Amino acid sequence: MIQTDILIIGAGPTGLFAVFEAGLLQLKCHLIDALPQPGGQCAEIYPKKPIYDIPGYPEVLAGELVDNLMEQIKPFQPGFTLGERAQTIEKLEDGSFVVTTNKGTKHQAPVIAIAGGLGSFEPRKPLLDNLSDYEENGVAYMIKEPEIYRGKKVLIAGGGDSALDWSIFLADVADGVTLVHRRNEFRGALDSVEKVQQLKNEGKISLITPAEVVALHGEGKLDKVTVKKTDESEELQISVDHFIPLFGLSPKLGPIADWGLEIEKNAIKVDNSLDYQTNIPGIYAIGDVNTYPGKLKLILCGFHEATLMCQSAYQRIHPDKKYVMKYTTVGGVTGFDGSKKEAPKAVVKAIN
Amino acid sequence: MIQTDILIIGAGPTGLFAVFEAGLLQLKCHLIDALPQPGGQCAEIYPKKPIYDIPGYPEVLAGELVDNLMEQIKPFQPGFTLGERAQTIEKLEDGSFVVTTNKGTKHQAPVIAIAGGLGSFEPRKPLLDNLSDYEENGVAYMIKEPEIYRGKKVLIAGGGDSALDWSIFLADVADGVTLVHRRNEFRGALDSVEKVQQLKNEGKISLITPAEVVALHGEGKLDKVTVKKTDESEELQISVDHFIPLFGLSPKLGPIADWGLEIEKNAIKVDNSLDYQTNIPGIYAIGDVNTYPGKLKLILCGFHEATLMCQSAYQRIHPDKKYVMKYTTVGGVTGFDGSKKEAPKAVVKAIN
Repeated sequence: MIQTDILIIGAGPTGLFAVFEAGLLQLKCHLIDALPQPGGQCAEIYPKKPIYDIPGYPEVLAGELVDNLMEQIKPFQPGFTLGERAQTIEKLEDGSFVVTTNKGTKHQAPVIAIAGGLGSFEPRKPLLDNLSDYEENGVAYMIKEPEIYRGKKVLIAGGGDSALDWSIFLADVADGVTLVHRRNEFRGALDSVEKVQQLKNEGKISLITPAEVVALHGEGKLDKVTVKKTDESEELQISVDHFIPLFGLSPKLGPIADWGLEIEKNAIKVDNSLDYQTNIPGIYAIGDVNTYPGKLKLILCGFHEATLMCQSAYQRIHPDKKYVMKYTTVGGVTGFDGSKKEAPKAVVKAIN
Repeated sequence: MIQTDILIIGAGPTGLFAVFEAGLLQLKCHLIDALPQPGGQCAEIYPKKPIYDIPGYPEVLAGELVDNLMEQIKPFQPGFTLGERAQTIEKLEDGSFVVTTNKGTKHQAPVIAIAGGLGSFEPRKPLLDNLSDYEENGVAYMIKEPEIYRGKKVLIAGGGDSALDWSIFLADVADGVTLVHRRNEFRGALDSVEKVQQLKNEGKISLITPAEVVALHGEGKLDKVTVKKTDESEELQISVDHFIPLFGLSPKLGPIADWGLEIEKNAIKVDNSLDYQTNIPGIYAIGDVNTYPGKLKLILCGFHEATLMCQSAYQRIHPDKKYVMKYTTVGGVTGFDGSKKEAPKAVVKAIN
């Protein structure tokens, strides 16, 4: 059982910054995220896109923002449970909570902070009868470990940046990449589109458009797919080891919706007049996952909410202590790893 | 009469960021600040100090943060009335406000945002009977334009960084710098203390410690001060053109305290459950100047408050329009100067 002070569900920018504010209060954090890396949408969906409304950054790439937040929270040594979805919650007699993931990992904490963004990102799946039969045996919706495709025959479906970028990447790894898209036109970064064109001309990517995968075949594991060209009656049988439909991710509030929290417009209602606590004492919701009058789903608002949440969590965890806030400019930052950052001290020195 | 959409009182980080959020809503801003430059405390008191709790910055110097905010808001061309203190407010029949500074500059706007930090910074003054007689004639508490001291005899009093740094700077400008401090020990950056020691050894700064200025003399303008050494009965008569006591700045809420706003613990009460509006509709208070349950006087909280304030201000200014928020990552940032920042667009392009 993983034990911590604040269990944060969601490792996007808001959840990450909460680690820093908790750390200033000497509270330890552990984060759960369904994605394989920290950063939420910023890391998974648009790492190369510039954001213009982070205060103090005229422009910052979403991926850079995540890197900077990871650097900022490093002294506070957060724990991570990645690639797992928070599934169930249980309240113990001592008032603490136990959260279990879809893979069975258990976490215990006196305070839960849900920083789940728009929800956990679920891949959009093609409508194919026997799709689920192959989900552990040849079909994947995200590429977590590219090396497993080395020397394999891979068919990617999709027409956006993910489909383009992974086709390019796997062209050098796999033993043959086929890219199937239901239109002739792809939508993505110009250089990605041009690179795929070039690899296709060189015979390194096999392109079938406009077309769709219409059937999956194989005993126990996938070994063949049927592709139908839209403008022809002809169907192609293609031998593959892996079929990777990359049709985008769609956020779903998911199992959290069944935790007894007050939900409004697919978001969790919180008390914005005090501490962003939900209707269940000890459970907070911060960032895009929450709602209140005047709510704006902006990263900078999540930072503020995380900060006020941590102060309230501190009082909950230490009802007998009074915390006196010290500015980092004055008190510096002391990490759990023993690191210390502080402003150069003034000297007191006589001049003779 | 200066006219604008949102008149911001206080040009610290919170006031500056409000310009950006207002600009996204196509609202223009004008800022008033008693200090001679934008940035508030960050620029005036601790520009060289690192801040560790700005989200996404593991470390940033206060002065850098101000520079970055100025760069971020540049497309929205804010106006500035600097070196003047907002003194009086008047409500016109059309519901708009007129704010007049201590120098008589008038500003009109439908929305006022008070982002006054801890108040306007007033210099701490020495207790000398006829001090005020010389305030325009030889005595100054801040150095706004160093050139006026060229070729003059200057006496600086104080034992902190300001006294040290200006003594060093003016040693090359003035015709003689005398530094008086009531202790032998100075408190400041090590290299500043060492530099003053060196200039003293070279005869470029005349140092009198422990000592105090006890009387000012001169007909119409200052021409002499009396300095008393603490440990001796002797008094020195020193010819000077300028006496500059640098005893630090102390924040005062100032004239704003008389505007009819609800004040609690030297801060302005606001509605944190909605939009950070004060008890006077149309007047908001954001950043360190406001108070509400759970309030934290942190820069990052001011950023959030400024953002929600702007949304509310928009509805007040355009009661008939509905604003649909667009993410900067999606919609980019279009400046009032015609500038446009946006993410590289995806192309839609066939691969043949």
